[in-house]
Amino acid sequence: MGRWEPGTRERLVRAALDLFSEQGYEATTVNEIAERAGGLTKTTFFRHFPDKREVLFAGQDMHSRILAEAISAAPDAATAVQAVAAALDALCATFTDDRRGLGTRLQAVIASNGELQERAAFKRTGLAAAMTDALHKRDVPEPTASLAAELGIRAFYSAFGQWVDPANQQPLTDLARHALHELRIAAAALR
Amino acid sequence: MGRWEPGTRERLVRAALDLFSEQGYEATTVNEIAERAGGLTKTTFFRHFPDKREVLFAGQDMHSRILAEAISAAPDAATAVQAVAAALDALCATFTDDRRGLGTRLQAVIASNGELQERAAFKRTGLAAAMTDALHKRDVPEPTASLAAELGIRAFYSAFGQWVDPANQQPLTDLARHALHELRIAAAALR
Repeated sequence: MGRWEPGTRERLVRAALDLFSEQGYEATTVNEIAERAGGLTKTTFFRHFPDKREVLFAGQDMHSRILAEAISAAPDAATAVQAVAAALDALCATFTDDRRGLGTRLQAVIASNGELQERAAFKRTGLAAAMTDALHKRDVPEPTASLAAELGIRAFYSAFGQWVDPANQQPLTDLARHALHELRIAAAALR
Repeated sequence: MGRWEPGTRERLVRAALDLFSEQGYEATTVNEIAERAGGLTKTTFFRHFPDKREVLFAGQDMHSRILAEAISAAPDAATAVQAVAAALDALCATFTDDRRGLGTRLQAVIASNGELQERAAFKRTGLAAAMTDALHKRDVPEPTASLAAELGIRAFYSAFGQWVDPANQQPLTDLARHALHELRIAAAALR
């Protein structure tokens, strides 16, 4: 099995999530992850990720880019919240329904470990910053840009939390749109 | 010098910030911090903090408690944002002007290190959660409670960033009140 075939990265993510779920995050070694991913080596693992923790946050750069690009590509007339809505649509489109189970396990692993929760909070901050920067480039002023990005990130995480619930059948995009709408109404009503 | 005299904790914080500023966070050991804090031992250090990183986040539990208590103590008629404003007043009152220099160095140290930034993002999340929980106890529904807490935490950090600027002469309380006002206006206008 070639080390550079497409999907190695994805296989490593799936193997890591399997092992973390089965035996815990702390107890799992990089060697075991590589082995479970189809007899890969530690060296291959380290070509894709700096350490075992980062496997869980593999999508951060890509997610930031997707959000920022969608905000740049929104029509000139789009408001800050409309641009953020377009960004959420673009991001949610990458979470196809076959990935729901991965999300469920990802969330359980992160909830089990303080260090992972810290890292997750940092990812969230990074995604919000990517949206904020993209809104600045559209000349959205502060604090409007940061707040619009914050509503977007809240809508995404709230929707993601519903989506990974096995009882939920709705697509992530619909959940995120609904959450963003609710948040905008609540923000407007804050007293 | 008694190990339990009041102020040992504060001395350790000041010593750590001095050393982190002078020689960097990574290069500083717990032994050096204890020694600089007036010839204390590593054992004394570990009575106060689990590791050298936590010295920088020493106030988290106290800050969470101050925020939550002020929200509980706000008049029944106070809106979510008014309760949050009372919480900021209470928290800011603990940052007296003689602590401005500590804040300046704290911010520089955190900015120098990715792990510290992760930890700082987690602290921020924790403070916001403390306010959100306290608002829930006042029967403020979601997502209003989370959003009001978010405005509060943004106002605090934005004000703190201005306050630690040596050129700034305004009290933290005034800066935070102003920031919260601006955020509420911007939130109401989000489209």
